[in-house]
Amino acid sequence: MRHIISAIVENKSGVLAHVAGLFAARGFNIDSLAVAETDDPNLSRMTIVTSGDERILEQIRKQLAKVVDVIKVQDFSGVAHVERQLLLIRVKAAGKERGEIIEIANVFRGKIVDISGKGLTIELSGPQSKIDAFVLMMKPYGIKEIVRSGSIAMMREVQNNR
Amino acid sequence: MRHIISAIVENKSGVLAHVAGLFAARGFNIDSLAVAETDDPNLSRMTIVTSGDERILEQIRKQLAKVVDVIKVQDFSGVAHVERQLLLIRVKAAGKERGEIIEIANVFRGKIVDISGKGLTIELSGPQSKIDAFVLMMKPYGIKEIVRSGSIAMMREVQNNR
Repeated sequence: MRHIISAIVENKSGVLAHVAGLFAARGFNIDSLAVAETDDPNLSRMTIVTSGDERILEQIRKQLAKVVDVIKVQDFSGVAHVERQLLLIRVKAAGKERGEIIEIANVFRGKIVDISGKGLTIELSGPQSKIDAFVLMMKPYGIKEIVRSGSIAMMREVQNNR
Repeated sequence: MRHIISAIVENKSGVLAHVAGLFAARGFNIDSLAVAETDDPNLSRMTIVTSGDERILEQIRKQLAKVVDVIKVQDFSGVAHVERQLLLIRVKAAGKERGEIIEIANVFRGKIVDISGKGLTIELSGPQSKIDAFVLMMKPYGIKEIVRSGSIAMMREVQNNR
């Protein structure tokens, strides 16, 4: 099962290596991870997406919560939440294909952030399914380069079954 | 000086811990890191933002390039590039303040992704300066929660001084 784990940690050297090490020590792969400052520059927030054996993940979660520099750990499984990703993608685009790609990008509310004689770079944010659908639409044109942020997530304020 | 380092790595357990460990071993803090799959599921792309002593960073970069699971390392310093971040922010919003916040979010081309009687959650992507400006605008209303993706970046195709 896919898990999204959010952790508030001290913003200092070695914390990321420590957290990543807990996963690595049990052979657990991290599908994606995003970490950046919060509005308090002393604290960072990590969003980790992973999947694998539930029992082992539970152990990792417990160990995580015990790390001195980890302030809070939350697992969004079974909890109503908002999950979003960011994509930068460069696609081959010349002649009439350029117009087609711009049209598709507009439908997805993407933004053209770079253009050359040979290609277009598009910025797009949204749920993973939307990002995946856009990448799929771009494949026939020829993807030259791709960067994804990984997921960031937040609990919904009202926890009914929306 | 602020550096953005992009690395293509094998998508397997332990690689992130190894990379983060190289920074930690020299007491270098990572300001933000985003790692996720590329369009090849065997490969991930990491975007690391860091700052500190140039000489030590050069050593880390060289060590990084020697790690077996690291395919390619690029430093975007002095190179024309596009850098973008993603933000999820929950702000206190009731009564007339809700309308104000929605207006500001529209100006920034943000999207309202959750709403309750007490607050609003907004999704926003863009350059760091735009994200910072939006967070600053939201402060007076009361920020309840914030998640940032950290930066992702891509070289511009045409390397003139744009």
